[in-house]
Order: sequence, then structure tokens, then C-alpha cells
Amino acid sequence: MTDTVVSSATREVVIGFGRPFVMIGERINPTGRRLLAEEMRSGDFSRVEADALAQAAAGAHMLDVNAGIPLADEPALLAQAVKLVQSVTDVPLSIDSSIVEALEAGIAVYEGKPLINSVTGEDEVLERVLPLVARHGAAVVAISNDETGISEDPDVRFEVARKIVNRAADHGIAAADVVVDPLVMPIGAMGTAGRQVFQLVRRLREELGVNTTCGASNVSFGLPARHMITGTFLSMAMAAGLTSAIMNPLHPEVKNAVLAADVLAGHDRDCAKWIAEHRDPDAVGMRRRGGRRRGA
Amino acid sequence: MTDTVVSSATREVVIGFGRPFVMIGERINPTGRRLLAEEMRSGDFSRVEADALAQAAAGAHMLDVNAGIPLADEPALLAQAVKLVQSVTDVPLSIDSSIVEALEAGIAVYEGKPLINSVTGEDEVLERVLPLVARHGAAVVAISNDETGISEDPDVRFEVARKIVNRAADHGIAAADVVVDPLVMPIGAMGTAGRQVFQLVRRLREELGVNTTCGASNVSFGLPARHMITGTFLSMAMAAGLTSAIMNPLHPEVKNAVLAADVLAGHDRDCAKWIAEHRDPDAVGMRRRGGRRRGA
Repeated sequence: MTDTVVSSATREVVIGFGRPFVMIGERINPTGRRLLAEEMRSGDFSRVEADALAQAAAGAHMLDVNAGIPLADEPALLAQAVKLVQSVTDVPLSIDSSIVEALEAGIAVYEGKPLINSVTGEDEVLERVLPLVARHGAAVVAISNDETGISEDPDVRFEVARKIVNRAADHGIAAADVVVDPLVMPIGAMGTAGRQVFQLVRRLREELGVNTTCGASNVSFGLPARHMITGTFLSMAMAAGLTSAIMNPLHPEVKNAVLAADVLAGHDRDCAKWIAEHRDPDAVGMRRRGGRRRGA
Repeated sequence: MTDTVVSSATREVVIGFGRPFVMIGERINPTGRRLLAEEMRSGDFSRVEADALAQAAAGAHMLDVNAGIPLADEPALLAQAVKLVQSVTDVPLSIDSSIVEALEAGIAVYEGKPLINSVTGEDEVLERVLPLVARHGAAVVAISNDETGISEDPDVRFEVARKIVNRAADHGIAAADVVVDPLVMPIGAMGTAGRQVFQLVRRLREELGVNTTCGASNVSFGLPARHMITGTFLSMAMAAGLTSAIMNPLHPEVKNAVLAADVLAGHDRDCAKWIAEHRDPDAVGMRRRGGRRRGA
């Protein structure tokens, strides 16, 4: 069993085989959200706070925080967002940037053990990000693309993942602290996108013994009734062994698919969570759940 | 690739790996439907007709027809129901009874190649049902229980399925004409019910090369928001290789999960069915789909 433990100052969350699926809220990300980007750039973080509270209330076990705004001071914005979110919620965070200086700034202010999102298989990126992960005792998302881009061949993506896991080991980072993202393409553009992910998730689990995550929403890009596609994708990927995802817990079709898949995988003892969630419709989304509270 | 071909007088449906999932409408069954049972017993088949039309309109590729009413003349009722349903729809039927004389009566009036539902692993049942299947060139649902009842051990259920497939071969029935039902227990009563089915479906496909079906609704018995559990169960079982199910296509949560899983499995080319289904909400359920029309 591979357990990836992340934490805030007061709460620990474990991503692992045989455990309830870990929902990582995707909303705090200005990519494609013009209004949020403008507000964050001008120092208005009220929407960041509201998104943090809403996702945690809807059941997110962790929150992804991204401040990728073109021409803005991303390290400063990311540090500010991380501090703010940690001041209003106790769920652990995924600190998300493609800029190493921004990751560094986010980690510097973070309380607990974060998930660093992400490292790719490119040598230059590996040699900059992995020392940072090792120094801070963090966990890291490993995205299975490299200098050659994103391969359409799942075997190539698997080998990139293996390379990252091995390189992480060279830096003293355990495989349990590497959460592999097999990369999810839009199914509307690539009919094999689902099968590729299911096959990769199974191999990553059986052959590398690592936990997995993905940006789930991408799969349904451009399709009508897309949240049903995203939810069904997640339940099928969970059947193949996916253990976490960056997703939107505010969409009932997505969240309910995850909760139902936990029931069917035997990860919701006596269906207690499902029954609590659905017994009283007024209560849906009003409780904090998931994660395991330890200590003060 | 294993193709199970069934037909009505004018329509052929193929259950198979790599093909769209086959939805078999479950509604024409008086078990637990007191009103329907009373009506059928008194010769009123109007609800049978309405259920047939509604399920076919909702996208059922086949319909299960059951007339199991205590103390009634089940062979006569089943024959009457089969004739009526074939007079108002052209989808192939699953002729469903635990009484061999009723199966015989249903087959006698059936036009096309039916699915006989079902044979179990009990020797006496095998020796009565398999000759009937062979004589009529039908396909058959094989339920993986035997004299010892329903085992909670999936390995035992697998061996029962293997026994039925081998015995069918002795009668000249190809494995392609045996559709195995791994038996679905309520997840609320048995937390391993989902995993058992996923594991069995995978083994049945990989080791026996047979198509599979199941009574899907049973999995969510007693739970709130049960149709979401049933739909998610189906999508996860499809990820494991399930190729058909006896289910209710009138529940959007169930039907949409199947259609979305077909998209994600790569069985809905260019997502055409999904887009047609969801582009115009008024059109949902108004089209006949599935199956492949051949001949007159």
C-alpha cells in the first residue's frame, strides 16, 4: 500500500490505495477566468477566499492554488493566495505553478506538508523542482510529458513517469511522495483519451506502485452535458485505480460520481458518507468531510 | 472478439467487446410490481405495451420480458407478453423465467433469435435449459450460482460460470452464445459487492472470452439516491469489461452513465450519440437508437 501524506498545520490527508478518493478543488486558478485574474492582479483576493470556502464546504479534501497570470508577479501572488487560503480553511494545499520561483514562494509561506504541482520529465525541470521538493519534505505531482511534448503513446508516458520516479529517488524522495498525472486529453478530440488513462493508471499502480491524480475537467472539454462526462470518467478511472483528482466538487454530477464510486469500491464503510450526503437534500455540501483530523 | 448476436424478425443486436454497451430494459417484470401483476393475471397487457414502448423510446436495445406471477399460468402469460411486445417494437427480447415450461412457451412464439434468461449451474437446470437453447439456436444468460447457492467467493462464482460454458459447449452452444451474469448483490448489504463484480467481469472476459450482463438495479437496493449508485456501478463495470445489463433506461442517471461510459471507452465515434442526445433536451428519449437494422 502506498500512502501519500500531505498536511496543513492542523489536518492530514492521505492519498492511497484502498482509501476514499481525494478530491482536490480546482477552482483557485485564474487560467480561463478573466475576472479572477484581474482581481488577483489588482490585489483583490475576495474571490479566492470565497472559492476556497465553497470548495471545502462541498467536500474538497485539498485545494489546488494557482496564480498564473501573464505579466503579473506570480511568486508574490501565489504566496499571498496560499497564505490567505490557509487562513480560512484547514485543508492541505496543492501549490500549482509552472514557474519554479513561484513554487518556492508558495512553499516558503506554507504551513504543513504541501503537494507541489508539478514536475515534468524534462531534465532541466527535474533538476530545479526535485531539490525543492526534497528540501521541504513535500510531495510532488509528476506530469508524464518531457522535452518531446505529450506523447499519444501511453507506453511512452509510462516511461516518462518511471523516469521521474527514479530521478526523485536519486534526490531522496520516496515513490510514495510522487503522485503521477497520466495527462488527460479531451475525449471529444481524441477517442482513445479515456482508455489511455485507464490503462496508464492501472500500470502506474501495479508496476510503479504510485498514487495518481489528474486534471479531470479536461476530458469533457467542448462537449454538451460535460459534467456528466467528467463524473463518469472519474468513476471509471477510480475503477482502474486512480486515487485523487484535481476537479470541481461544486458540480453535483462530478462530486456524486466520486462519492458513488467510493461506495462501489468499498471505500465508504456501510455507505455512511453516501447516506449522510443524500438523506437530507438540504444538507448537501454543508458539511466539511474527508481528510482525517489529527492533533490540534 | 466475442460477438453475441440476437435478433427480432427485423432487427439484429450484437453484444460484444469494443462495441457500444447493450441496454436491456428491465421493466416488464411483475416481481415487486403488484399492479402490473394483477393486470397481467386478469389479461390486461396495456401496461406491458406502454413499458415496452417507453423503454424502446428511451434507448433500450433489447427488452427483458418476465411474467413470473405466483399461481398464474406463467407459460401462457409469458407467451402472450412476448407476442404483444414483438407486435409493438422491433427490439430483440430476453425471455425471462425460472420455469422451463414458460421459457419453452415464450420461445415457441418468438420471432428471431432470443436471449434466454436464464440457466444456472445446477445440473438439473443445465440439462433442461441447454437442450432448449441448442434446439432453437438461441443465446442464453448463465447465472453463476449452483446447488450450493450464491457463493460470496468470486472464484467459486467464476468456476460455476466456467462449468456452464463448458456444459453449453457439450450441447453444441458456442461460448459466444453464453452471456454470463456474475450476480450483483446490494452494496448496502455487502461492501465487497462492487469489487467482486468488477473482478469477475474482468476474469470472465480475459479467461473465458465471454460477454457479460447483470441485473444492475440490485446493487443500489435500499440506498438513497440509488439511481446514481446504479449508474456509477454500470460505468465502473463497463470499465472492467461488462458488455450489457438488464437495467432501467428510463432513469436518466442510469442511462446517461452508460452513454458517457461508451464515450469514454471509445465506443461512441466522435461522441455523436452523446452530442445528439444532449444537444437538444427536447429530443432526449424520442429517438430509437442502438442495434443495427438489417434486412426488411
